[in-house]
Amino acid sequence: MASRIRIAVDCMGGDLGLRACLPAAVKALSSFPDLDIVLVGNEQQIARLLDVSRHEFLSIAHAPDVVTMSDKPTVALKHKKQSSMRCAIDMLHQKQVDAVVSGGNTGALMAMACLVLKTLPGIDRPAICSLIPTADGHSLLLDLGANVDCKPEHLYQFAMMGSVLASVLDGREAPTIALLNIGEEAGKGSETVKLADALCKADTNLNYTGYTEADRLLSGDADVIVADGFVGNIALKSCEGTASYISDVIQNEFSHSRVSKVLGFVARPVLKTVLQKLDPQQYNGASFLGLNGIVVKSHGNSSAEGFFNAIAQARTEVVNDMINVMARRLTVLSL
Amino acid sequence: MASRIRIAVDCMGGDLGLRACLPAAVKALSSFPDLDIVLVGNEQQIARLLDVSRHEFLSIAHAPDVVTMSDKPTVALKHKKQSSMRCAIDMLHQKQVDAVVSGGNTGALMAMACLVLKTLPGIDRPAICSLIPTADGHSLLLDLGANVDCKPEHLYQFAMMGSVLASVLDGREAPTIALLNIGEEAGKGSETVKLADALCKADTNLNYTGYTEADRLLSGDADVIVADGFVGNIALKSCEGTASYISDVIQNEFSHSRVSKVLGFVARPVLKTVLQKLDPQQYNGASFLGLNGIVVKSHGNSSAEGFFNAIAQARTEVVNDMINVMARRLTVLSL
Repeated sequence: MASRIRIAVDCMGGDLGLRACLPAAVKALSSFPDLDIVLVGNEQQIARLLDVSRHEFLSIAHAPDVVTMSDKPTVALKHKKQSSMRCAIDMLHQKQVDAVVSGGNTGALMAMACLVLKTLPGIDRPAICSLIPTADGHSLLLDLGANVDCKPEHLYQFAMMGSVLASVLDGREAPTIALLNIGEEAGKGSETVKLADALCKADTNLNYTGYTEADRLLSGDADVIVADGFVGNIALKSCEGTASYISDVIQNEFSHSRVSKVLGFVARPVLKTVLQKLDPQQYNGASFLGLNGIVVKSHGNSSAEGFFNAIAQARTEVVNDMINVMARRLTVLSL
Repeated sequence: MASRIRIAVDCMGGDLGLRACLPAAVKALSSFPDLDIVLVGNEQQIARLLDVSRHEFLSIAHAPDVVTMSDKPTVALKHKKQSSMRCAIDMLHQKQVDAVVSGGNTGALMAMACLVLKTLPGIDRPAICSLIPTADGHSLLLDLGANVDCKPEHLYQFAMMGSVLASVLDGREAPTIALLNIGEEAGKGSETVKLADALCKADTNLNYTGYTEADRLLSGDADVIVADGFVGNIALKSCEGTASYISDVIQNEFSHSRVSKVLGFVARPVLKTVLQKLDPQQYNGASFLGLNGIVVKSHGNSSAEGFFNAIAQARTEVVNDMINVMARRLTVLSL
């Protein structure tokens, strides 16, 4: 019998808090029969919204405290040891669960995960990695903000970790890896990017394809795109902002006159598909990579549907044994 | 009588070369009766496509050589002194024209402009600044790639130059300025950005509003958004790539079945407006700021319509005496 997958859900984070987490957890249980979910958070508040006893594979782990979105990571580390976020990570560390999903304060989550879980041997700094849409599916982009000032070695480590995640999530044997740069020719870009390019080229285990530019981010040219945390964050948010801008333009254009409203009504089924493809909730779920444990961050403003996608992503990483695959890959590199 | 505006058009650059520049020049002459245009390039090739004698305010300055898109800036500087690009910049330096517009190799154009025109007193490095669309109009984004590794002082200079350009192009008295960062709270971001934030805050002549995130780039929150050249380039190209991705999604969705084709046909007038708003040609024309002369770069893949917009932008900068406005602003600062 296949073993069950246990996921701790930090229920107290994100803009919607319980209103996103609880429906997402219930949907995940009905979608994945192999799943056990532990709701970590204020027991009373959870019980008020959901009768946990009605769900066979659902339980509550009470945590009295909450990390707020404005808590500084250092403060959260020191004073929020009884928070839902910290309790969930402690449970992962003690192997009571196989993964943690949280929609809370990213900086605090990363700081707690680093302190408690530690990084894998060979990794200096964990990175945040997310799916981005392409015409035929998705690519992966990392780092998204965990590491602001990076050395070339860090970018190289991100490339390697992204390669493992692409194998694990998408079953690709040799995912293609590109470095995000402001030109494709050798000689372009910052010194850090040029040195990282040399490190990636030297690793024959990496299917490294060279530089890519930001206008090709959603082209699907590469399975994994690597940048430092500042640049990766700017790139992802620029894409999100543009999608949201265009979505507004479409909705405005189809509503500003009686004729355009009728046209919008007629074209609605197709427009709906278009707007769905632009919905960041479809790609919600950022993996923290390089830690000794699976942690997936759901976007702060995620809906229940988005949070469900983050849980599903954590499950896939557990099913495919991501941590051990990555640890083995790192051992080969260090030989 | 108002004096005439003289613009040198480097005709040999860009993917379309003469096929974009010549129709753009003709359109500019008919749109702006105060304009004189000098077409700089291969006289025979120009004459084959356009009868210059039929246009009162159009002339040709023959240049035998061409800077290619693959020429390295150092090579172009040394060996392409007879190129159309260099001749146009030399004409500007010798005050035979008031501005240069080129769709050629950005690195070579910047290198030649720096060498020949020099920077204004108080400016270490010129920056590249472009319009980006917003719901109600546009904002300005700089630097777009001229300066990869920036110090805080450079970002501050970009803020000041962007402020002047926003006044000149849009007639705003105190344009709002924001620094692009990966969070809005103090303490977020790189060391360089934090120090630049302090410099901008200290300048009471600057209407500085603090940090902005990349998902707000197209929101119109700030009139001018400042970043180093690496980050600015990534942000702009991420926006462009997303717009192009979404434009493809829309066109695909409206063509993949007979029903959706009919819907697309019916909704065409509105869709056309949407797609036009996403068209980067509408915002073509990047100003090189901080030089002692007006240089506008048209995008390499620009159409005639895009190139026309770049010419119009150069004209506006001349009409509003941008160089002197900026020089005066710099003098006040250095007092």
